[in-house]
Amino acid sequence: MFERLNEVKVLRDPVHGYIHIDLKVVWDVLNSAWFQRLRRIRQLGGAVVVYHCAEHTRFEHSLGVYEIVRRMVTEVPDLSRELNEKEKVTAELAAMLHDIGHGPYSHAFEGVTNTSHEVYTCRIIEENTEITKILEDACPGLSKDVADVIRHESSNPILSQLISSQLDADRFDYLIRDAYFTGTKYGEFDMERILRTMRVDNGRLAVKESGVYAVENYIMARYHMYWQVYYHPVARSYECVLHMLFKRLKDLGTRKLDPSVIPLFIPIIKGKKIPLSTYFDLDEYACAYGFAQLVHHKDPITADLARRIRDRDLFAYADSTPSFNRKMRSTLKKAGYDLNYYWGRNEVEQNPYKPYSGEFSGSIWVRMKDGSTRELSNASNIVYSLIHGPTNDDNKVFFPDLKKK
Amino acid sequence: MFERLNEVKVLRDPVHGYIHIDLKVVWDVLNSAWFQRLRRIRQLGGAVVVYHCAEHTRFEHSLGVYEIVRRMVTEVPDLSRELNEKEKVTAELAAMLHDIGHGPYSHAFEGVTNTSHEVYTCRIIEENTEITKILEDACPGLSKDVADVIRHESSNPILSQLISSQLDADRFDYLIRDAYFTGTKYGEFDMERILRTMRVDNGRLAVKESGVYAVENYIMARYHMYWQVYYHPVARSYECVLHMLFKRLKDLGTRKLDPSVIPLFIPIIKGKKIPLSTYFDLDEYACAYGFAQLVHHKDPITADLARRIRDRDLFAYADSTPSFNRKMRSTLKKAGYDLNYYWGRNEVEQNPYKPYSGEFSGSIWVRMKDGSTRELSNASNIVYSLIHGPTNDDNKVFFPDLKKK
Amino acid sequence: MFERLNEVKVLRDPVHGYIHIDLKVVWDVLNSAWFQRLRRIRQLGGAVVVYHCAEHTRFEHSLGVYEIVRRMVTEVPDLSRELNEKEKVTAELAAMLHDIGHGPYSHAFEGVTNTSHEVYTCRIIEENTEITKILEDACPGLSKDVADVIRHESSNPILSQLISSQLDADRFDYLIRDAYFTGTKYGEFDMERILRTMRVDNGRLAVKESGVYAVENYIMARYHMYWQVYYHPVARSYECVLHMLFKRLKDLGTRKLDPSVIPLFIPIIKGKKIPLSTYFDLDEYACAYGFAQLVHHKDPITADLARRIRDRDLFAYADSTPSFNRKMRSTLKKAGYDLNYYWGRNEVEQNPYKPYSGEFSGSIWVRMKDGSTRELSNASNIVYSLIHGPTNDDNKVFFPDLKKK
Amino acid sequence: MFERLNEVKVLRDPVHGYIHIDLKVVWDVLNSAWFQRLRRIRQLGGAVVVYHCAEHTRFEHSLGVYEIVRRMVTEVPDLSRELNEKEKVTAELAAMLHDIGHGPYSHAFEGVTNTSHEVYTCRIIEENTEITKILEDACPGLSKDVADVIRHESSNPILSQLISSQLDADRFDYLIRDAYFTGTKYGEFDMERILRTMRVDNGRLAVKESGVYAVENYIMARYHMYWQVYYHPVARSYECVLHMLFKRLKDLGTRKLDPSVIPLFIPIIKGKKIPLSTYFDLDEYACAYGFAQLVHHKDPITADLARRIRDRDLFAYADSTPSFNRKMRSTLKKAGYDLNYYWGRNEVEQNPYKPYSGEFSGSIWVRMKDGSTRELSNASNIVYSLIHGPTNDDNKVFFPDLKKK
Repeated sequence: MFERLNEVKVLRDPVHGYIHIDLKVVWDVLNSAWFQRLRRIRQLGGAVVVYHCAEHTRFEHSLGVYEIVRRMVTEVPDLSRELNEKEKVTAELAAMLHDIGHGPYSHAFEGVTNTSHEVYTCRIIEENTEITKILEDACPGLSKDVADVIRHESSNPILSQLISSQLDADRFDYLIRDAYFTGTKYGEFDMERILRTMRVDNGRLAVKESGVYAVENYIMARYHMYWQVYYHPVARSYECVLHMLFKRLKDLGTRKLDPSVIPLFIPIIKGKKIPLSTYFDLDEYACAYGFAQLVHHKDPITADLARRIRDRDLFAYADSTPSFNRKMRSTLKKAGYDLNYYWGRNEVEQNPYKPYSGEFSGSIWVRMKDGSTRELSNASNIVYSLIHGPTNDDNKVFFPDLKKK
Repeated sequence: MFERLNEVKVLRDPVHGYIHIDLKVVWDVLNSAWFQRLRRIRQLGGAVVVYHCAEHTRFEHSLGVYEIVRRMVTEVPDLSRELNEKEKVTAELAAMLHDIGHGPYSHAFEGVTNTSHEVYTCRIIEENTEITKILEDACPGLSKDVADVIRHESSNPILSQLISSQLDADRFDYLIRDAYFTGTKYGEFDMERILRTMRVDNGRLAVKESGVYAVENYIMARYHMYWQVYYHPVARSYECVLHMLFKRLKDLGTRKLDPSVIPLFIPIIKGKKIPLSTYFDLDEYACAYGFAQLVHHKDPITADLARRIRDRDLFAYADSTPSFNRKMRSTLKKAGYDLNYYWGRNEVEQNPYKPYSGEFSGSIWVRMKDGSTRELSNASNIVYSLIHGPTNDDNKVFFPDLKKK
Repeated sequence: MFERLNEVKVLRDPVHGYIHIDLKVVWDVLNSAWFQRLRRIRQLGGAVVVYHCAEHTRFEHSLGVYEIVRRMVTEVPDLSRELNEKEKVTAELAAMLHDIGHGPYSHAFEGVTNTSHEVYTCRIIEENTEITKILEDACPGLSKDVADVIRHESSNPILSQLISSQLDADRFDYLIRDAYFTGTKYGEFDMERILRTMRVDNGRLAVKESGVYAVENYIMARYHMYWQVYYHPVARSYECVLHMLFKRLKDLGTRKLDPSVIPLFIPIIKGKKIPLSTYFDLDEYACAYGFAQLVHHKDPITADLARRIRDRDLFAYADSTPSFNRKMRSTLKKAGYDLNYYWGRNEVEQNPYKPYSGEFSGSIWVRMKDGSTRELSNASNIVYSLIHGPTNDDNKVFFPDLKKK
Repeated sequence: MFERLNEVKVLRDPVHGYIHIDLKVVWDVLNSAWFQRLRRIRQLGGAVVVYHCAEHTRFEHSLGVYEIVRRMVTEVPDLSRELNEKEKVTAELAAMLHDIGHGPYSHAFEGVTNTSHEVYTCRIIEENTEITKILEDACPGLSKDVADVIRHESSNPILSQLISSQLDADRFDYLIRDAYFTGTKYGEFDMERILRTMRVDNGRLAVKESGVYAVENYIMARYHMYWQVYYHPVARSYECVLHMLFKRLKDLGTRKLDPSVIPLFIPIIKGKKIPLSTYFDLDEYACAYGFAQLVHHKDPITADLARRIRDRDLFAYADSTPSFNRKMRSTLKKAGYDLNYYWGRNEVEQNPYKPYSGEFSGSIWVRMKDGSTRELSNASNIVYSLIHGPTNDDNKVFFPDLKKK
């Protein structure tokens, strides 16, 4: 049904060895301007200022998720047998396009625009002529099918589980990939073992009991990546300064616009819905250029915050406690800082695993040797212990380092 | 004080890159017949019948533990500063010699001889002319000092902690090495990070708070290696058959000794204390030869059990439950099996970490940012959860596979 | 003499494990705006359009070269002993700063501006207030010393050899790093072995005879990286389109400047010497933004070439032969293409190793077991054969893919 | 046609990830006593005394070669299409069994018995009841078919090329495996790339032109493994002592046999054809036991040579030159050594690649982009240079280290 390429195309990938592409529709998506744009959106927001090699992009991650889903629907016997060709291709495309709507600096930017990237993802798939056209040319109705998988509205919920649950190809790829490019070992786990023990059980993705150790390992890998990489205080400091810069620009408004403000920033400053054509151009390269321009802004706060981002001169940080905060805020005020832009607070917490709490919780299911099915926390003592023990959280304040001034 | 070699000798090691030897006494120990004997004792008992590449030996493990201790006393600033040269060399030698007393098939054999390998270790260091002579030649009294470290009777308890606690060079090396040679990823953890955050705190080895994530990772790595490798039921089946073979030989006694019994087995069969000169020869090569001979023993039970070991024709296994056991034992009896030698039961359990319970519990200590010291389970939510949650155990029975007969 | 940091700072690096920084002057250079700018210059020019993960930057490469030189002057006994502290620090800083003058898209851009990056490197070290100031604050005269090492004018030529010869820290780092981030194995070689066998011989860097195999391996690794990565025809196609775009912009001139041309491009178009302050801003982020703007240029050739870069819609390529070229040029003309901008030719060749040809040829010297010194091609049959055999070259033409139109 | 297992069995392997077994006949061979015997024959002869982790066995290597051939006949489109099921299974079994006839200490032992392991391999496949029976049960005539592939007498010569040519699964596995277990990087090359570019061309195995770089890399990897591992002088010293021990035993004869000689050695000493039942028992475990017994032999030369093997107290070595040899032989004589057993000479040479010289030379063929086929040395400048340049050789003498006495 779907047109195949004359020969399988392969892309060398340090994480997966090769990415294999055998369908014309996948090849066309890969070569579209929208997909190529993902080369200009990095995978990690602020973590690259901590782990200096983590320059990897959404482009390679999207290819990686595609490759994992391609392997799942080919190599997991239950999936290979139970899904029809169209479902398989739909899953592969949803994998490839699940992050197509990401803006610059990852989730940090979602806070600035107050819009989830998934909204843009579906718009780009369904409204945009290029991606939409490629999908519709391959099979009428395909663009809605792909978006439905991403929206968790697919007629076959398994397809969404492959890409977005607590044990999915998205997490698999980003953990291993982020570990590879940061140079940490924390994100490594035995994906091959999980793939080998994956089954479909009552219409839900599950692993065999013999895969539980590998799943525990994966849960721990994810936990450690959160605390060592994604929630690293220096990464959060970077994101805090970024947030403050846009806050300042919004407060200054667009009445007497400084010439250093690039046009792409205007809809963000105005808080308006960003048209897709503008969104296309709004990548990390444009932003970095825009920040470098803002260093020459006549407002000293804007100029200072922009310079801090450009030159990685970030805020210091400390544990947030009433007494420390009171004292430090007072010191900063005396030093002349406007605390609206020079004082940030950020609390993070992470649960290694969330047990079942309804249809969309993406729980992990285990098929036991005796034929029964259990939710992961009932099949693993380790996971049971983790979800019943205390939760890790981290509440920090961010502010200029006065020693440096 | 200790004689150095003209140039540092290096041995290529896949796990550590290179093993560095700069002291004559270490070089002499390496070249002694007793240390070379460790090439003939493999690191893992039965696990090689599950993980077919795990042929690695106590020789390379001992070198690995030596190399880690060498790095600790050189690279950890507190140790490098607080230990004098003799203490450092003593620790390095204790690391190198801690397993010198191991017999064949690891801990499985300790069950057969009812003697811990540590007894032999100290005897070989203190009673044996060759190793003892090398140590005494390097520094009079050194052999007792080294044995004291292994016996946890050293005047400086830190030295013993380096080699034997819950966070020691022995565990570091075997986890990473066993992971490398089995091909599992479970045993990998960030040893470099732990070494970098290691401190001495009130005369005890500790890690800085910033190393806690790496320690959690290590705890989990160890936990998973136990269940995936060391306690693998097939490995335990192998050890069960081994145990049954010696049980049978002991029951047959030495009155009318079959010519297939090699002389080295006689003291074991008699349950006598094994002289060091015999112990020297009693390596896995001699045992494997001895088992191959026993295949021709006139007692059919002995011959069958020996053949099972030689040809990896192991016992089947199942979860031990009263009803299953009753039924299976009855079936086996009907099939003509003598249950004294064809029915084994084995229960294992593993705690990821044991919290403080007195001086020799080898707890892990954490130096917090605020200067205080905490026991690991009070510094890590993950570890706290694990030790307060349910414990993993596994109770299995082993018996001949009747389908194969 | 040089101020040390309170504790050694480490940066996690996937290639070297950790980068170790113990000197204040190195730390200050790292945190300077000019050094942070290297985060915005990627290591490979066009190769990232072939190897999609190769987004790594000059920033991490510079740190890597620094780390290797730091290890050389610490761990190679001859260097550790013969160099004084100032020479060691000078070498480390020269390693760190050797690429500080790189512009965007690596060597491709040097063709556009007709200026070698080394010219900028020395200007930034000696003329720029920030880097210059840091160096001079650490030690008066240090900026000239560092630049002299880079210019091969140092009073101790060994220092230059560490960073720039045919066996230097620069090549070591980029081969291993490029192999890691492209996911190819070709660039791997045994750097540890080379470091271990490195000696100083009559004021020249040399390796012991026992290191020759590792050097042969390194020579081959470099050879293969050239042909598989650096000279990949698709990478050269990308650089060809880049070249054509600037050629077109230069030909259009700056009389009636289209509003889509960003100011940073003007000195390039005019072929003028670029002031350092402009050069600072001229990174790959600015260029990518600039190209995205040029897509809206009213000149259709400019707009098309810019779009081709942005969306990776590159030129096709073929082996350059008179008959093919004649035929294809005629076809392209008929299809309406201006061959000044839509026809490129590029020839590359690579010698695995260049034997001695005078002082600055950076030959590799080998200290033989018998005490004599030989030039590598006289110590290695493999290298002798390679330099006396035929040379690999590749002559290609680049042009629009007419099938796509 | 061939019976499949209920589910694919997998064996974890550090080199290939997993070994996949889906056919009953392969599973039965794996579980046979003869195949399990390969666990007791190590892959490398003397190299383990240099690279202390290289304890890996013919068992795992045989599984690795099987896995590569399984992948070749499945994943290489030309093979998957052109071979029928029986040919594929025959190739897989030939891969698995190609080393079944190996005796202890690899090729060193062939010198002692004057019999190639391939003779035993075919005898075991065709004469032995167990392996023969398994093959004949699966398909009558299969044992001869499998042996024919190993003897290069198969009706389809491609099958032999997969296992034994200059670019075959045997070399692929041993290079990568030996590199992994020795910890050297020299043996690594891009097997995945070679597999991807493999084609069948006029009934011969070939690679596409785009795979030539990977083949060059493989040629160099092999070259370096020879010089760094297989031909390491210390490994050759070990093999020399081994050779001398058996020479001495043969010279002593079996008239008045010392009780320390184990019965398994008698046919070797007598130079008689070894019956398969004896050959089965003659593994490295039996030999090591036998050597340990010989340490107590009343002939001091035998006892000394046996002790040297057991305790790794090997011969020293030097380049063989008439003047050195003359002088050293005289010194040894004066020191009382019998030069018949204490003086060995060994010359090795290795060609990286042998160009075409008739049907069985196993040349490597390249299918060029233009459709023509070339022999490798005509398709690669590197290989052309190597075969036309000087050859590496090494001529060494081995003798007791007099300083140690």
